[in-house]
Amino acid sequence: MRAAGLAGLLVSPGPDLAYLTGYTPTAVTERLTLLVIPATLLATGRASVVVPLLERGDLRHGPGTDGLEVVPWRDGEDEHATAARLLDPDGTYAVSDATWALHVLGLQRALPRTRLVACTDAVPMLRAVKDDVEVERLAAAGAAADAAFADVLRVPFAGRRERDVAADLDRFLREHGHDQVDFTLVCSGPNGADPHHEAGDRVIEPGDLVVLDFGGLRAGYGSDTSRTVLVGGGTDEALLAEQRAVHEVVRRAQQAGVGAVRPGATCQDVDRAARAVIAEAGYGEHFVHRTGHGIGTTTHEPPYMVEGEDRPIEPGMCFSVEPGVYLPGRFGVRIEDIVVAFPPDVPDGARRLNTSSRALQVVG
Amino acid sequence: MRAAGLAGLLVSPGPDLAYLTGYTPTAVTERLTLLVIPATLLATGRASVVVPLLERGDLRHGPGTDGLEVVPWRDGEDEHATAARLLDPDGTYAVSDATWALHVLGLQRALPRTRLVACTDAVPMLRAVKDDVEVERLAAAGAAADAAFADVLRVPFAGRRERDVAADLDRFLREHGHDQVDFTLVCSGPNGADPHHEAGDRVIEPGDLVVLDFGGLRAGYGSDTSRTVLVGGGTDEALLAEQRAVHEVVRRAQQAGVGAVRPGATCQDVDRAARAVIAEAGYGEHFVHRTGHGIGTTTHEPPYMVEGEDRPIEPGMCFSVEPGVYLPGRFGVRIEDIVVAFPPDVPDGARRLNTSSRALQVVG
Repeated sequence: MRAAGLAGLLVSPGPDLAYLTGYTPTAVTERLTLLVIPATLLATGRASVVVPLLERGDLRHGPGTDGLEVVPWRDGEDEHATAARLLDPDGTYAVSDATWALHVLGLQRALPRTRLVACTDAVPMLRAVKDDVEVERLAAAGAAADAAFADVLRVPFAGRRERDVAADLDRFLREHGHDQVDFTLVCSGPNGADPHHEAGDRVIEPGDLVVLDFGGLRAGYGSDTSRTVLVGGGTDEALLAEQRAVHEVVRRAQQAGVGAVRPGATCQDVDRAARAVIAEAGYGEHFVHRTGHGIGTTTHEPPYMVEGEDRPIEPGMCFSVEPGVYLPGRFGVRIEDIVVAFPPDVPDGARRLNTSSRALQVVG
Repeated sequence: MRAAGLAGLLVSPGPDLAYLTGYTPTAVTERLTLLVIPATLLATGRASVVVPLLERGDLRHGPGTDGLEVVPWRDGEDEHATAARLLDPDGTYAVSDATWALHVLGLQRALPRTRLVACTDAVPMLRAVKDDVEVERLAAAGAAADAAFADVLRVPFAGRRERDVAADLDRFLREHGHDQVDFTLVCSGPNGADPHHEAGDRVIEPGDLVVLDFGGLRAGYGSDTSRTVLVGGGTDEALLAEQRAVHEVVRRAQQAGVGAVRPGATCQDVDRAARAVIAEAGYGEHFVHRTGHGIGTTTHEPPYMVEGEDRPIEPGMCFSVEPGVYLPGRFGVRIEDIVVAFPPDVPDGARRLNTSSRALQVVG
């Protein structure tokens, strides 16, 4: 905070609040909950939490809320004025990325001279470097996702709707310990060309490539894995050869991205390494997203593996490496693992937290 | 928009976007999706949507996105600068309440003279008045919630954990057609005194009062119902008499709140009517929240039934009436129905969209 010139942090329900206090309200609604951590915390030991009166009792579920000054507000009260009394009217505060506009604008109205900046802009590395316990939890979430993938390889694909396979994936993730499933994308045939296509009513056919992208939270930490599988029984040999060729390009790109995690590398180096392989193979214009994102108490967070992100990769950063190729109207391929940078057992590179095979698997 | 002095609306993923376009992205992430509706829409017919390049194809799932100018942005690009090019740099825009701080602050940086205000402050009634189709959907969601309540009355309570009963409620809501369950609060005994207590590991005992509060979305529209039930087998006669007495106070308060929906009434009149009954009975300080909130494509939205909200109640507004009494360390009672104001069949009052009995039911 001092380095970023901040008077403090303003933390809303979500991954930042879960990380700092262990507290997650039952539901995120329009009612303001706001943790206020002043930059003077270490000197004074004082931090506060503004909370709806009717949820004051729920704070006990967050072990890190012990010792906070609790500032309840009552329905009908101006909650932004209540929060404003805790802030330096001339200070600069970083607010959690997902804080509601309703509250950002309410605080600005209550404190016209106070400057608000987004956490990602001011202190993007707040949660980026994971400690050993966190890496262990991310590894456990990754292993659970791998187990769910192994299970889904055994279910029938051909003749079933995408949403049926998605329901299987959801169930397997929960069976392997996920408390929350955030997404189970099943993108078959031409739907694979939409990177974020949601599983729908399309009936999967023999010969389809199917992009699977699934993840959620297990014990508070995230998983996020993609594999692309081939449905057996296709008869178009030329298409099959092309599917296999593109899959191999993406597999090599993913390997190159992971391999770019070397001492001195920056985040954009991971993107450049993966992108170079795909561009070299002639598919550059069809890799339409960044190569990766951080993961922790949420499934998308800084650091981002994208051109222009020149922060160095630090030991303990955990992020996805997920290049893809998307051919409109035809098919798509994506392969994604979570990795940890420079762990004790791989001091000069990355260790994958997903270990299921990246070879093209054939399903039924 | 013209009455509010707006140059336009900026709509993020969530209930506003679902209402206006039918489009809901697979997951709400840090990537900007923003519908821009200029106040000149009726004259020019032009509105735009800023969308991550990799989700462009998903827009087809929103029937109301047809005819929008699609403005994709690519990972690594300054998405706020892209959106800013669509806005009047000197205009005032209302932004959806739940728009991320990351984007509010990014837009403010890109457009320092533009004024942003929250939808709830500028156009709170945007979605408040429901048309016949919407009332029908809310009624269907309410009927499904009533059916789930009827089912849960038949499961055992005593000797099971709150979270087990919550799982039953979740299942029943889905069986009766809910696509999404947002909350299944089961607050037994002393936990009932926390209005938003989340179902936990407490084992329910004979003689407990149990507050049930459950809801979610069915066909895009919300349910939100509370009932308080008594677990049979209690032996403390004095406690039982008090539980029944408090339940009766809350039942009468809820009836008074619904009865306050009369021609000329304002939102705060509903709160005042319910609160008066509880205060009269000596429990005023234990009714720690407002009496209600609107409901539509989300379960909490304007108008709010709270002191200070002096907007008139209009025909077609749909909202909860949910007074409660919370006795710390002992028990709580809440009774909640959704109502529609001044429907064709009740032109001078409210019709309940929940019709399950509000009498104190005894469970096993």
